[in-house]
Amino acid sequence: MRLKLGMVGGGEGAFIGGVHRIASRLDDRYELVAGALSSDASRAISSARALGIADERAYTDFEEMARAERARPDGIDVVAIVTPNYMHFPVARAFLEAGIHVICDKPVTTSLDDALALKELVKTSGAYFALTHNYTGYPMVRQARDLVHQGKVGKIRVVQAEYVQDWLADKAEDTDNKQARWRTDPKQSGPAGCLGDIGTHAFNLAQFIAGSRATEVAADLTTFVPGRRLDDNVHVMLRFDDGARGMLWSSQVAPGNENALSVRIYGDKGGLEWHQETPNELWFTPLGEPTQRLTRGGPGSTETANRGTRIPPGHPEGYLEGFATLYSNIADAIQARQGGNTPEAALVPGIDDGIEGMRWVEAVIRSSENNSAWEKLQS
Amino acid sequence: MRLKLGMVGGGEGAFIGGVHRIASRLDDRYELVAGALSSDASRAISSARALGIADERAYTDFEEMARAERARPDGIDVVAIVTPNYMHFPVARAFLEAGIHVICDKPVTTSLDDALALKELVKTSGAYFALTHNYTGYPMVRQARDLVHQGKVGKIRVVQAEYVQDWLADKAEDTDNKQARWRTDPKQSGPAGCLGDIGTHAFNLAQFIAGSRATEVAADLTTFVPGRRLDDNVHVMLRFDDGARGMLWSSQVAPGNENALSVRIYGDKGGLEWHQETPNELWFTPLGEPTQRLTRGGPGSTETANRGTRIPPGHPEGYLEGFATLYSNIADAIQARQGGNTPEAALVPGIDDGIEGMRWVEAVIRSSENNSAWEKLQS
Amino acid sequence: MRLKLGMVGGGEGAFIGGVHRIASRLDDRYELVAGALSSDASRAISSARALGIADERAYTDFEEMARAERARPDGIDVVAIVTPNYMHFPVARAFLEAGIHVICDKPVTTSLDDALALKELVKTSGAYFALTHNYTGYPMVRQARDLVHQGKVGKIRVVQAEYVQDWLADKAEDTDNKQARWRTDPKQSGPAGCLGDIGTHAFNLAQFIAGSRATEVAADLTTFVPGRRLDDNVHVMLRFDDGARGMLWSSQVAPGNENALSVRIYGDKGGLEWHQETPNELWFTPLGEPTQRLTRGGPGSTETANRGTRIPPGHPEGYLEGFATLYSNIADAIQARQGGNTPEAALVPGIDDGIEGMRWVEAVIRSSENNSAWEKLQS
Amino acid sequence: MRLKLGMVGGGEGAFIGGVHRIASRLDDRYELVAGALSSDASRAISSARALGIADERAYTDFEEMARAERARPDGIDVVAIVTPNYMHFPVARAFLEAGIHVICDKPVTTSLDDALALKELVKTSGAYFALTHNYTGYPMVRQARDLVHQGKVGKIRVVQAEYVQDWLADKAEDTDNKQARWRTDPKQSGPAGCLGDIGTHAFNLAQFIAGSRATEVAADLTTFVPGRRLDDNVHVMLRFDDGARGMLWSSQVAPGNENALSVRIYGDKGGLEWHQETPNELWFTPLGEPTQRLTRGGPGSTETANRGTRIPPGHPEGYLEGFATLYSNIADAIQARQGGNTPEAALVPGIDDGIEGMRWVEAVIRSSENNSAWEKLQS
Repeated sequence: MRLKLGMVGGGEGAFIGGVHRIASRLDDRYELVAGALSSDASRAISSARALGIADERAYTDFEEMARAERARPDGIDVVAIVTPNYMHFPVARAFLEAGIHVICDKPVTTSLDDALALKELVKTSGAYFALTHNYTGYPMVRQARDLVHQGKVGKIRVVQAEYVQDWLADKAEDTDNKQARWRTDPKQSGPAGCLGDIGTHAFNLAQFIAGSRATEVAADLTTFVPGRRLDDNVHVMLRFDDGARGMLWSSQVAPGNENALSVRIYGDKGGLEWHQETPNELWFTPLGEPTQRLTRGGPGSTETANRGTRIPPGHPEGYLEGFATLYSNIADAIQARQGGNTPEAALVPGIDDGIEGMRWVEAVIRSSENNSAWEKLQS
Repeated sequence: MRLKLGMVGGGEGAFIGGVHRIASRLDDRYELVAGALSSDASRAISSARALGIADERAYTDFEEMARAERARPDGIDVVAIVTPNYMHFPVARAFLEAGIHVICDKPVTTSLDDALALKELVKTSGAYFALTHNYTGYPMVRQARDLVHQGKVGKIRVVQAEYVQDWLADKAEDTDNKQARWRTDPKQSGPAGCLGDIGTHAFNLAQFIAGSRATEVAADLTTFVPGRRLDDNVHVMLRFDDGARGMLWSSQVAPGNENALSVRIYGDKGGLEWHQETPNELWFTPLGEPTQRLTRGGPGSTETANRGTRIPPGHPEGYLEGFATLYSNIADAIQARQGGNTPEAALVPGIDDGIEGMRWVEAVIRSSENNSAWEKLQS
Repeated sequence: MRLKLGMVGGGEGAFIGGVHRIASRLDDRYELVAGALSSDASRAISSARALGIADERAYTDFEEMARAERARPDGIDVVAIVTPNYMHFPVARAFLEAGIHVICDKPVTTSLDDALALKELVKTSGAYFALTHNYTGYPMVRQARDLVHQGKVGKIRVVQAEYVQDWLADKAEDTDNKQARWRTDPKQSGPAGCLGDIGTHAFNLAQFIAGSRATEVAADLTTFVPGRRLDDNVHVMLRFDDGARGMLWSSQVAPGNENALSVRIYGDKGGLEWHQETPNELWFTPLGEPTQRLTRGGPGSTETANRGTRIPPGHPEGYLEGFATLYSNIADAIQARQGGNTPEAALVPGIDDGIEGMRWVEAVIRSSENNSAWEKLQS
Repeated sequence: MRLKLGMVGGGEGAFIGGVHRIASRLDDRYELVAGALSSDASRAISSARALGIADERAYTDFEEMARAERARPDGIDVVAIVTPNYMHFPVARAFLEAGIHVICDKPVTTSLDDALALKELVKTSGAYFALTHNYTGYPMVRQARDLVHQGKVGKIRVVQAEYVQDWLADKAEDTDNKQARWRTDPKQSGPAGCLGDIGTHAFNLAQFIAGSRATEVAADLTTFVPGRRLDDNVHVMLRFDDGARGMLWSSQVAPGNENALSVRIYGDKGGLEWHQETPNELWFTPLGEPTQRLTRGGPGSTETANRGTRIPPGHPEGYLEGFATLYSNIADAIQARQGGNTPEAALVPGIDDGIEGMRWVEAVIRSSENNSAWEKLQS
């Protein structure tokens, strides 16, 4: 049985909306039946038609959509929120209040306060809330996490995370680049630029794999492109609850980097290295032994990794498949509420991850404003 | 409007059937509504139900399916044939005779004679026939072809193609590995083992990119695993119509190779290198200039490559996306028959590519039987 | 005419002494004729004999050696100092005072004060002083520097440097590992462990290539191996005089890293990336163009890079060749003092680089002691 | 005690002579004291002076040199022959007849008959004869050989060798490129172009690692550059005495390939892959286990590999070091003749390897002339 899916945002010209739709379709677990794809009425309707959504379920107002869908006997089970950041909170609230499950793009909100408020709403609504830190859906990321949990790297000492791009090296927000425009606009993006857009992914992924929780940060945020209104480069030192130390570098102005997200973790027994642009391999170095190239579905794969893989080793799966795995895990989790069992439910990022991300964003900003003094994540 | 898709083969336990289904779904161009998924009645019905196919359209006999679907007002537009090789021809014939478009997995048949006969059937049926040499769907493969066509490598001198795996290094056909069993069984696979299973892909891909046509081959086929009934290693020297020379190595017994398909092409002005396991990059070396790493959607992308890409550079697309691009191109081509225009129609492998592949398979076998004497592809 | 070379340190069981000897020999510019290879008399003589040094020039006391060699008509032209760090200063002083040129391993001293004092000694002695930051001798490092100078990366924004090893992940200083013993001993190494041993190389190299000068640092030094007396992990954020920002990570406890020195530099026009373990290639990305793989001696090589290369592209040169290039540049520089000209003299690290390195080491230590507050390099 | 070395060939403008000199010097086992560096008298003397050879030992005639050096009490122990190919035989003959040890560059001669005659001369002279297939000197090549001998790859099935360059993609012999001129001139190079120049290295290396002996070849030689007088591309299929099959591709017209020598070997238990341009790593895949990246001096190093390494893992050694290892092994072997022991003596290529290489060259040429019919190596 496919879940009935609605979408808010993601009309023509958007990027992440299309990704969510493919991800929902890939394993055939969802059917897109309703949408408030644009606040512009004519674009809302034309976008909906292009996606096979019936006119009567092509909304221009997300609150109306929440009410109407709740009222329908065949109303949506779950809504995907793929708007600019500042809309995440109000949209999520509307659907949670309507008792509809929510799949929300990251960052969860534009402030920690909103994230905390959202947690209350999730609790009272009883609905399911998932946050698409999609990079956690890659099989080799999950295998890396498994290896850490199995003690293969030992006690963690160092965590190095990076998420580096180059598409904002020039002032792309002055062109007709829609993505650049809203992502550098504090009104739409919130107080964090590169930090919120991709730095949050790197932070989430590092913690996801390492298991450690960052307790404090010393940060130096920079805006390199003249006239830009938000940071485009992020340098952070990290301290973790288990004594590990780390660094995180995120940038959108580093030429030659397309989407260079990577995590390296070193413990007293071994090391791990994963790069998003070559996602089907994971480098594992047990101390004093040769480095191993682990592959998706290859020798040594863990159960968790195998459950997130569709095709044999050597047949590369990519970004969309990792995203789709998250969507399928979410479908499992939602359906498991009517009984059933889903081992990956615990892996799906939720509201607590969102809160942790916002604590991190705000601590980084505070530290940077305070000339890089160490700031605690728990305010 | 989505095309109505039927499928023959691809029941539980199959590999490539699932791939075709994901490929058809990814861009939302098809709807799977009928299938003869297994010749075993109970598996046919249970597989169909798992895929959401109505019981009345879950057939056990492909001929019955062709007749019944033809007769239905809502009958399928196109059938995907994902059976073992020996069934490709009879199934394709049945659907072509019913006037239904055909998407057929490779190799097109198990003999050149059958392939030639199939061409006649395609011609008389007026139906569309596509052959899923899916590796041609990768954007960087198409960009490589474009660069050759633009003269960037100059006159081609050398073509080196490889397709190497290791999953048959042991006698997997003696286990319950269903894939190994039929692929090493001459009755189901035809006279070619590794040669037909993956060698044909490498050959097709080399010609697809280079544009050159092989005219003769000198080959040495080997069966390394004791007791195996078909070749598991293929060594071929090639001569092309434009004076180029080449080599092709294909193996299923080379430990450490998961799905190592690669093509390297060298002309008097430059060189190109592409590896399937890292499909989002293409190495281009203009003679006397630094080697360039071209990326999917990155600087220098060609139109053809861009039309086959869904997400930004650095967000890896993989095997399923390339396969899906072929499916979407096929949908375009079928729909263009009612008018319309589709620039990639010419890129979709069809019956002539199938015939060329079978000419090649048979010439390789003849050469190997004749102690590697050069054999012409045109018999 | 070969220069007459003496050596202090580098007896049996040492590492870097052998490297200096090979480096001096490779281009046939030096002849090793004297040494105080060990303070242990019998090891001093046996080491000297093994190297073909006459017994009468096998010293056990470096001060005696300086006096005696100065007095000989055929006395050494230049001495190589390859002792543990704490001996660099007294040995250099002795030979400078004897008017003998000095080639000193890094770090130049164990304190900034000593480094400043040494500068005075260099000045008054009139002798030549070179510091073997040998990684600057790699052709592609020099080419990277050239590209920066030519404006190919534009105004520099971000500098990321790393120097990571794993050989001290366990408590190797408790074994008979002589290298581990002295490098983790504050009496022999000075106040900096990993920081002084390899962090200084990364810092030097980053500035060498970028041209920018670091003005302040925020650092977090850690000792992960229990009982170790010096830092084994270094995390530093950097600010540069031209507005660039950066990070430096150096560690000796990261499993899987053998000698992973790397520098990445990003400006508003392009990016550069170089890794010491694959030293014959340099990645250059002009913004908006494909990434180029530049190779030693390959298309686009600069004059400086070409002068530091001995064999054709594709024939890898390594660590010893880079070191030898530095030695040959030093020979050129020394011989140029009698007239002549040497374009690479300006590239040889000297006392000012040593001072800069010590300023950096001390600022990092201060910052780390001050809970990572920003500390200026100019005290 | 250093061996006294003479050299024939290698005057100003040569390539390989300089390489031999550095290789002889690197480990300080030789002293260059005599030379017939050029047949041109003034170049012979100026080249000798530049190398510190006394005028009286700067010969213009190699036969005079052999006689004179034999007569001197301090005459050379060994001569290095670094002339164009056609001179290898007469020069080797002259020195062997003078009882002087010989280090000869490859290919050993320009015909099998000469090679066989040379073997007789070696035998009767009692002198030592080494052939500089220098790539066998790389530590990871020797480790690969060790792994094969230890049974780690099991029974060998497939051997894939390549040696590919691009420096002759244009007609460089029409320019003042001295290397291109003699290497494409049948009078100086012999009947084989690319085949003799680099194909012999690939063939030698494949057999060195695999241990298998090729018994027959089917070959297709091509000359792509118009007007060139020797082959510039080599395609060969191979059959081995142990049932293995293989391919060898060698080319000097493949843009983007600088010095791409590689060997891949696959047995029933595992696979090995080594690339000359990244010589410090070896990829080893035990069947059914993760691929291992073995490094020079790293975990799992064999004794043989360790004895051929000078500096720690991660400090790259390159082409010159591998060449120097061969020179040092030769010094060991020569000195062991006066008693002593040298474990690597058996690894130094000698006259039998030269003969095997010439059998291979001639079989390849015969096969190619006979439209690629299989030709036996044992004529």
